Amino acid sequence: MPVIDPDSAPLRTGTIYPAPMAALVAGRSSRKLGEAAGLTQYGVNMIILQPGAAASARHWHEREDEFLIVTQGEMLLVDEDGEHPMRSGDCAAFPAGQANGHHMVNHSDSEARFLVVGTSIDGEVAHYPDHGLKVVLGQGGPRFFHEDGRPFSDGGG
Amino acid sequence: MPVIDPDSAPLRTGTIYPAPMAALVAGRSSRKLGEAAGLTQYGVNMIILQPGAAASARHWHEREDEFLIVTQGEMLLVDEDGEHPMRSGDCAAFPAGQANGHHMVNHSDSEARFLVVGTSIDGEVAHYPDHGLKVVLGQGGPRFFHEDGRPFSDGGG
Repeated sequence: MPVIDPDSAPLRTGTIYPAPMAALVAGRSSRKLGEAAGLTQYGVNMIILQPGAAASARHWHEREDEFLIVTQGEMLLVDEDGEHPMRSGDCAAFPAGQANGHHMVNHSDSEARFLVVGTSIDGEVAHYPDHGLKVVLGQGGPRFFHEDGRPFSDGGG
Repeated sequence: MPVIDPDSAPLRTGTIYPAPMAALVAGRSSRKLGEAAGLTQYGVNMIILQPGAAASARHWHEREDEFLIVTQGEMLLVDEDGEHPMRSGDCAAFPAGQANGHHMVNHSDSEARFLVVGTSIDGEVAHYPDHGLKVVLGQGGPRFFHEDGRPFSDGGG
């Protein structure tokens, strides 16, 4: 059945982020709609943000194109150029390799949602300019590093 | 600037379809939002349907995953299983290779819109089960064939 029941995709909470970044995304949850519907060539995820929650730390991808559309409520796109208000129906795109760290933040007092599309490249690297960190997204799970290459560990990295 | 101004993408009208199918999509226009924003790994197109217009003939793709979200108004998804009403916020997915010919039709009396995501594979083949035709989507432009392999020509094919 092509029409997607959002509840067919498990509600995911939690984060891969280490402590310095994890607090940002408290109040975020998501559903992998594309995967639930059998798509394999790109991911399509519904991101649900409670008031105050960010969808991610500000980040940019080396090799993966990213696209999003706001589907409910209002939020801010925050990037190197500042804050950009977005509301339901508004779209944004982040071409691979453009070093413009960005994230979506729900500054409203109501739940807000967006749909995000992204390719999934094994070994992809994403950068977090506010934290001096980067992550390698491989099949063995995410591995965080300082931007100078030293492995990052929650304990004392 | 990541936030997309839809007017930054030229409004496209017309169709690659030969006469038997072209009448279906009178009243359809589109904007290539992803391309306008610099994305190259998948297409993201806004499809605008006037009342009575279909977005395409019923079709399915051999190798390209397709995803869509209705962003304005109401329409029908028509596939091998019949008609499925969809409204703003509803999503659908069509994994590559599933021979379920489908299209979106605006049966309402108001303009309706959806956003469609698709990979773009050179030499992709799409099938049109209502017309006994298929198309090869190569860099030299689309080429239509009967399903038995004979080239199709508008004139007497």
